[in-house]
Amino acid sequence: MGIGEFARQVKDASIALAAMGADEKNRALEQVARAMIERQGEIIKANQADLIRSKGENLPEPLMKRLKFDETKIADVVDGIYSLVGLEDPVGRTIFATELDDGLELYKTTCPIGVIGVIFESRPDALVQISTLCLKSGNGVLLKGGSEAMETNRILADVIIKATEEAGVPANWLKLLETRAQVGEMLKMDEYIDLIIPRGSNEFVRHIMDNSRIPVMGHADGICHCYVDEDADPDMAVNIVVDSKTQYVAVCNAAETLLVHEKAAAGFLPVLKEALDQKQVAIAGCPRTREIIPAEPATEEDWKTEYLDYKLSIKVVDNVDEAISHINRYGSGHTDSIITASKDRAARFMALVDSGNVFWNCSTRFSDGFRYGLGAEVGISTSKIHARGPVGLEGLVIYKYRLIGNGQTVSEYASRTKTFKHKKLDKQFPL
Amino acid sequence: MGIGEFARQVKDASIALAAMGADEKNRALEQVARAMIERQGEIIKANQADLIRSKGENLPEPLMKRLKFDETKIADVVDGIYSLVGLEDPVGRTIFATELDDGLELYKTTCPIGVIGVIFESRPDALVQISTLCLKSGNGVLLKGGSEAMETNRILADVIIKATEEAGVPANWLKLLETRAQVGEMLKMDEYIDLIIPRGSNEFVRHIMDNSRIPVMGHADGICHCYVDEDADPDMAVNIVVDSKTQYVAVCNAAETLLVHEKAAAGFLPVLKEALDQKQVAIAGCPRTREIIPAEPATEEDWKTEYLDYKLSIKVVDNVDEAISHINRYGSGHTDSIITASKDRAARFMALVDSGNVFWNCSTRFSDGFRYGLGAEVGISTSKIHARGPVGLEGLVIYKYRLIGNGQTVSEYASRTKTFKHKKLDKQFPL
Repeated sequence: MGIGEFARQVKDASIALAAMGADEKNRALEQVARAMIERQGEIIKANQADLIRSKGENLPEPLMKRLKFDETKIADVVDGIYSLVGLEDPVGRTIFATELDDGLELYKTTCPIGVIGVIFESRPDALVQISTLCLKSGNGVLLKGGSEAMETNRILADVIIKATEEAGVPANWLKLLETRAQVGEMLKMDEYIDLIIPRGSNEFVRHIMDNSRIPVMGHADGICHCYVDEDADPDMAVNIVVDSKTQYVAVCNAAETLLVHEKAAAGFLPVLKEALDQKQVAIAGCPRTREIIPAEPATEEDWKTEYLDYKLSIKVVDNVDEAISHINRYGSGHTDSIITASKDRAARFMALVDSGNVFWNCSTRFSDGFRYGLGAEVGISTSKIHARGPVGLEGLVIYKYRLIGNGQTVSEYASRTKTFKHKKLDKQFPL
Repeated sequence: MGIGEFARQVKDASIALAAMGADEKNRALEQVARAMIERQGEIIKANQADLIRSKGENLPEPLMKRLKFDETKIADVVDGIYSLVGLEDPVGRTIFATELDDGLELYKTTCPIGVIGVIFESRPDALVQISTLCLKSGNGVLLKGGSEAMETNRILADVIIKATEEAGVPANWLKLLETRAQVGEMLKMDEYIDLIIPRGSNEFVRHIMDNSRIPVMGHADGICHCYVDEDADPDMAVNIVVDSKTQYVAVCNAAETLLVHEKAAAGFLPVLKEALDQKQVAIAGCPRTREIIPAEPATEEDWKTEYLDYKLSIKVVDNVDEAISHINRYGSGHTDSIITASKDRAARFMALVDSGNVFWNCSTRFSDGFRYGLGAEVGISTSKIHARGPVGLEGLVIYKYRLIGNGQTVSEYASRTKTFKHKKLDKQFPL
């Protein structure tokens, strides 16, 4: 069957799915959780096949680790499903209500986006996480996972499809794609697919963005900064910079560049260097940095680089405004933190740094859906519309306007026979 | 100067503009309003030049009418500016606040999108409207109007630029483009421009969507439906259908297709035909329609056509579900209305029709920012993400997360030395 037909079927199913109540969706989620446990033997067996084949194909060790989907991982995704059940339904909320005139009531209410296309790399748990998020938010989904996890993904999709259909979710709400060619076709299906969420490397996300008319939610880069201001507490600054850089280097919210006020540099950089040496962090420094501590010379390229590794670029700046300009020029709009005792400069930094997450006196590593208390994370977005920063369930819904009248026509208002009241109503959509 | 440099300058200005307070922005808006009046002689003179040149070039009469910008039009845009001043600032609102842990407070706050590129056709009042909406919402803007209004647009942009700079708005926040080639370049400036809003014909909007990586907010089609259910009040149904079709035919929220329940058709269609005849509305009907009233035969193409004219396509359907399927298949997700006495069927229609505006017992012509009480309208969006339906100021803002700590690092939470509280806070961002 062609992808066009697949996508059309998912679109059709998504219409009915959009109208499902919170309880029905939660029952379906619980059914998925139970089926994961019941069928865990099959899942682990399929994953073993993927692991053996991938080992034969010399898949690098970190990817082998991500591919592994054992009892512990299954228990984790099942826990995730139960916590998703506990979250409030993001669909059907009344954002506002207005009485336009007597008997003419407008309701702005949340609803699912429609059909989401998700493309993810090796981790099979992403399949479970994304599809349950889509179900909770009432969206149909087309999924494409990494080919190294083919057998695992196939059985996981089968578990989810069977369990949800048993629980009364419209058939065809979820489809698994298995080839690269199908992804290419999917990117052209703007008639049926409303949003693409790519999860993977920068290059991969950029490729998707360049090859589809469908809106894309994701982030291409995570070039995050710490700025240590002139009056920063030195101990606090060292702790925050070390945590931002080294707590987990391979993630998008790890810091890549440190900016230091010139008045703080001489005192702060040697102490920081000692702490970074303990974590074996390499340093690329600007000329003023290299007058204070040993470092390889930083090039223009360093300010634009997401190392995702034990390496930090350091630049000494004249003041907070130079720090802000540097971040807005070279940053990726992800997460940036100022360490300062000055409330005014913190306010200025948080107002003028054009990033999804702007922090004062804490680590860049906090920008994360779980840490923010959003419950579950669809991903982190660096786009400027729809959803920005860590995106929870609310990033998978949009709204529609529902207007209830009793025969009103616009002619009556155009001719001034009637006039609008526009009175705020404090009530929920009643149907 | 190349558009790249223009766009970069607007981006730089937009950073400072984002941090302006509500009072400062309102004072600048009032300054624009005063300057419009003070310089109305210049504006009218420039518009005369456009009118004379365009008449010589045989610009069609409806476009000549749109091009005209006289004292009345100036008074209208000035009124519009003062009502914009009266609206609440969409920027800097705290959407929610959460105490992640002691002394670690997260604020989700609204902020401008950044730089908006707007492309509009003949009406010069669109220039004033869009640029003042961008100013109120703190966004920089690149504008391109129709070449027929060249002189008028040039003087209007000059009035706005000078007045706002006098009032302290950062220089370069608004730039006027004057050639088609510049628009082509603008569409490639995804580094500096965050959103494109095209206002014009379907073809024009589609062309923009196909030629830019920048997100586009707009609507390509307005194929709106009325569905007259089996137990609709016949008088109400006639009034609503006639209003939806004829109150103003050239606009996107006018109805193009009528769907009628088979049980209502025989009684309703002849009465409707009489009313439509008085307005000289041509009818294309399905075979069942043509058994009841005279009509040209409707083809598959009719269901997909936005006539924007005194013409209506009519289809008899078996039930509300066939009506919903027809709308979801052929509609453009704009505005669709059910006329029925049944609360259940109204609820079903409003839940399952996948459009930005779903109505019960009222005219499709109500879907409009002013009628909705949104105050000012950026446009109507048929996209499925960010903003949908009539879009007011809130469609020009997004949010950022601001996190205030006192030295917190993620290591402490990863090692379980500390745990998150995630306590909802009822307070505004304090800086």
